[in-house]
Amino acid sequence: MNTLPISVSWATGVVRILDQRQLPARETYLDCQNIEQVFDAIKSLSVRGAPAIGIAAAYGLVVGLEEGISARSVSEVKAMLAKRRDYLASARPTAVNLVWALDRMMAVASAGSHESGPHLIEQLIREARSIHSEDRASCIAIGEAGLEIVKRYPNLLTHCNAGSLAVSELGTALAPMYLAHQLGVKIHVYVDETRPLLQGARLTAFELGRAGISRTLITDNMAAHVMSLGKVDAVIVGADRVTANGDAANKIGTLNLAILCQYYKIPFYFACPWSTIDLTTQSGDQIIIEERGSDEVTSVNGHMTAEVDTPVFNPAFDVTPHELVTGYITDRGLIAAKDIPLTDSVEKGPAVKKVV
Amino acid sequence: MNTLPISVSWATGVVRILDQRQLPARETYLDCQNIEQVFDAIKSLSVRGAPAIGIAAAYGLVVGLEEGISARSVSEVKAMLAKRRDYLASARPTAVNLVWALDRMMAVASAGSHESGPHLIEQLIREARSIHSEDRASCIAIGEAGLEIVKRYPNLLTHCNAGSLAVSELGTALAPMYLAHQLGVKIHVYVDETRPLLQGARLTAFELGRAGISRTLITDNMAAHVMSLGKVDAVIVGADRVTANGDAANKIGTLNLAILCQYYKIPFYFACPWSTIDLTTQSGDQIIIEERGSDEVTSVNGHMTAEVDTPVFNPAFDVTPHELVTGYITDRGLIAAKDIPLTDSVEKGPAVKKVV
Repeated sequence: MNTLPISVSWATGVVRILDQRQLPARETYLDCQNIEQVFDAIKSLSVRGAPAIGIAAAYGLVVGLEEGISARSVSEVKAMLAKRRDYLASARPTAVNLVWALDRMMAVASAGSHESGPHLIEQLIREARSIHSEDRASCIAIGEAGLEIVKRYPNLLTHCNAGSLAVSELGTALAPMYLAHQLGVKIHVYVDETRPLLQGARLTAFELGRAGISRTLITDNMAAHVMSLGKVDAVIVGADRVTANGDAANKIGTLNLAILCQYYKIPFYFACPWSTIDLTTQSGDQIIIEERGSDEVTSVNGHMTAEVDTPVFNPAFDVTPHELVTGYITDRGLIAAKDIPLTDSVEKGPAVKKVV
Repeated sequence: MNTLPISVSWATGVVRILDQRQLPARETYLDCQNIEQVFDAIKSLSVRGAPAIGIAAAYGLVVGLEEGISARSVSEVKAMLAKRRDYLASARPTAVNLVWALDRMMAVASAGSHESGPHLIEQLIREARSIHSEDRASCIAIGEAGLEIVKRYPNLLTHCNAGSLAVSELGTALAPMYLAHQLGVKIHVYVDETRPLLQGARLTAFELGRAGISRTLITDNMAAHVMSLGKVDAVIVGADRVTANGDAANKIGTLNLAILCQYYKIPFYFACPWSTIDLTTQSGDQIIIEERGSDEVTSVNGHMTAEVDTPVFNPAFDVTPHELVTGYITDRGLIAAKDIPLTDSVEKGPAVKKVV
């Protein structure tokens, strides 16, 4: 395995963030030594993807605090943390994972007694590492749940970016591919460029390449032709939200692929952590689809492709009905579509182990 | 009807060519008063689309010749024409329609007797007008053959550019839409942007807008979602080549749409002149698909969207099998898919008149 790009990492006193704004033109890392630099990286979208933002914020809460900390009392440090928490939370007010990670850190500061400032900081760094490693473990579990699928279907197609850049090391949809590649399984991945924001071209093709995985970039409308040539054994994509009946929202274009898979009798899988499965929503028709600005469709990377006043429809997601889904690759194992409706009992019982 | 952009037109002594290189940013017309300007317009791709190139060349052969012509003999004029023909033919050596139109013009010069230089020029201008008006008539016939379809299915979706910019006034796939609009039928057209070269965004959305037809631009991967919302009654696209069994090659992404139409039970039509139907080829699997350069996929309008060395697959066309096609809208009428294999007997017998 070659070098997989790491969106966020921590070395003593430094939060290293891959500047995704510059991808794929330049692979530049920001070494943030103070909270202001982490704030800027989050605000400017240098780091993106909900889990990655949370991890960056957790480290950001403590970065630079160690210096001169021995001279400060525990209460002084707690007061500093409260201010820093609010500052970081304001970097992207709507990012749920940002606040979630910061509040989990603050709970450590509030709980129990801390014998000194340095001791508190030490515990916070440990907590940030836990947040990071739990996300990493979830990705590995997803990878393991999908490993047999990738072994059986080594010629894959994916959409958007559900890889290391959005999450932590292995990603979700790409996790089984990375694991298989590490084990020496020869695979090939077709990558949809994923208009309008081109996450496939900019991020997925980039990170698969860095990992040394053979991949081919196509425009989204080429998928049917590629499938007609027999070049795709299975499709694996991420999911933004899976409802109780197995319907799933994901990046626009996912539904398109699922229908093509049915026509060509190609297995179609969603890969996501269990936390993405929303058991309180019964079916996909209850999901409200975010519509975004027209400029994303009338331009590419800021360069006009159509008249600026052209009427546009720009849904960010679509909903794939469960009848088009072969299975769900989760950190609780592989779940066959026939086992829906999904329930929390999956937590207790054994997940489907064989390829479905 | 508002102003439909005219790719090529002729006014006394001037070939007016819409500079398609500048679309949609600027609607600029080149008024060519001499053969060199027409040559440049063809060579530089200011005019594109096989029929439009042929029409421009036919007018280009005679433009600027009238001045001082009364002093020249018929044989002098013929010698000038031979040179001019070769010069224009060299503008785009692989364009079949260019040579076809020029040779049709030269046949007029060769045939019969011409009493004077001006008389010969007059006959050539008449022939150029014939080439133009025959193409226009073919488009109108296609429009009439598809009119009932558009009346029954007023919410349409199209792909690429099979409109006035590629052919003459009405185009092929867009011809029934323009005719219906002229008759006051309220229609709406979803326009696939059509990566990689964005003919939908740059040309189709532009010309429908100029004609005053309500349209919405989408990225190619949004078609399934739009169909799932019940917003598309029928899909009409152009065709580059239809084989005897009804399989058809067209711009990449067409097959994708045909499969989606089958899933959503939406009628799917090809529109093309009869000359596009290649009865000597039995089925689509005999069609060789042109593959183009990777830079079209790794960039948009010259701006990089992926790493320049990313492996790419870039087929220019795909082949839609006849079982996914509802009918063929041609200048010999509407042909139901059930009436394939296609034969030349369509020429003699009446074409299908009702909506199929």
